[in-house]
Amino acid sequence: MRVDFHFTPHQADEIWLRNKDVVIIDVLRSSTTIATSLRNGAKEIIPVASVERAVKVSGNLFGDAILRGGERNGRMIDGFNLGNSPAEYTEEKVKGKGIIFSTTNGTLAIERARFARALVVCGFVNISTVAAFLRTQGRDFVILCSGRNGMFSLEDTVCAGMLLRRMMDNHDVEIELSDGALAAVHLHKSLGKNIMKLLRASEHGRYLIQIGFEDDLSLCAGVDTVPVLPRLVGGVIRLNADPGVQVTPAA
Amino acid sequence: MRVDFHFTPHQADEIWLRNKDVVIIDVLRSSTTIATSLRNGAKEIIPVASVERAVKVSGNLFGDAILRGGERNGRMIDGFNLGNSPAEYTEEKVKGKGIIFSTTNGTLAIERARFARALVVCGFVNISTVAAFLRTQGRDFVILCSGRNGMFSLEDTVCAGMLLRRMMDNHDVEIELSDGALAAVHLHKSLGKNIMKLLRASEHGRYLIQIGFEDDLSLCAGVDTVPVLPRLVGGVIRLNADPGVQVTPAA
Repeated sequence: MRVDFHFTPHQADEIWLRNKDVVIIDVLRSSTTIATSLRNGAKEIIPVASVERAVKVSGNLFGDAILRGGERNGRMIDGFNLGNSPAEYTEEKVKGKGIIFSTTNGTLAIERARFARALVVCGFVNISTVAAFLRTQGRDFVILCSGRNGMFSLEDTVCAGMLLRRMMDNHDVEIELSDGALAAVHLHKSLGKNIMKLLRASEHGRYLIQIGFEDDLSLCAGVDTVPVLPRLVGGVIRLNADPGVQVTPAA
Repeated sequence: MRVDFHFTPHQADEIWLRNKDVVIIDVLRSSTTIATSLRNGAKEIIPVASVERAVKVSGNLFGDAILRGGERNGRMIDGFNLGNSPAEYTEEKVKGKGIIFSTTNGTLAIERARFARALVVCGFVNISTVAAFLRTQGRDFVILCSGRNGMFSLEDTVCAGMLLRRMMDNHDVEIELSDGALAAVHLHKSLGKNIMKLLRASEHGRYLIQIGFEDDLSLCAGVDTVPVLPRLVGGVIRLNADPGVQVTPAA
């Protein structure tokens, strides 16, 4: 099995990603927020790259069946119901609703990979579920980190390394690693023991603390705390419907 | 002192690099070949991004005062005198000559950073010399790895990590690290103990072995074996003329 690895979506060609299996990682915070929201009963997440499109797509159903969520520069967007803090996406607020979702980095990566054969969303919170899914597929795959404003993000890369480590350690899977994937495995080894410390040290983590979202860091640092599999099908992200892959992670 | 770090030149904006101090790293093999060639008496290296331009620039002086060197896909270019193997750039061949130089990744990175305030070329072979130069400058700088066909390269990143380590350990310099620079430092810690093993394991190293350039790997793996400072001034790379920075590395 061959794993290709991209530190940012900007490195990856849209056409090249077509018909590939793609894992999108945006630890801080899109991956965590998407998983939390679906776990809490949101019907679907509709990722859109621009704010203008988010407003247009939500149309007449806005506020009733449809909410708008997301951020720019970490903060809630004017006219939106929700920001990008996983804590906001409670069952009370999101159950049964569709959520138009637009974030600076995460939805950009999803947009870039929208023609993928299978696209799943991964954070620390659902990492074993994603590893189990990839193992079930048994195919080559691509990891696309969302990065930060087109630049390398440490926390996404360490999460990718943990995902690869889980697949190599726990399962009988032989993986051929690109230079980037090999780097991710080594960075996970160096920095993956204390995820909370890693998030606090990362550029994005420091920025979130600065603008008042320190509590989000611990939600994003939880390993396997939200064991669901968000999957893009037909332009919307829902819980994966395939039987046998909504696994409970091993203790 | 702030260090910005780019895994590939494609991430870095040409205008953003203007008036910055930039270190170009292409371990396999441009950095090593450029340093070797200047150490062996080449008058200057004229980096050009395209083969067409290399042929045009060399013009009437070709073969006499000017040689053409470089590669595409690792192999010498038709009509060129030299490939990109440091072993070819002997004193006998290059002394007193100008060399028009065009390689797949290295000269692309140099081209991208051509408006830099100071541009120096770094490999393992001259790493302490570059560290001493940066220390003398005492300014923020940017590390631009050449990467490989627009993708992350493990050996360039580990070399960057070693450069940062040398600056942080040996000198009284406080460095603020971006996520990318922090990753480089950790990758150097994990993979920098045996450079030859690293080069053999890297994608580019494996490719060079496959096309018959295995011997080049040991030339590129030597730490401080070619302690010179190649510097771009007015479009050509020469040995740095500033006094006091052509240092001999500490034993």
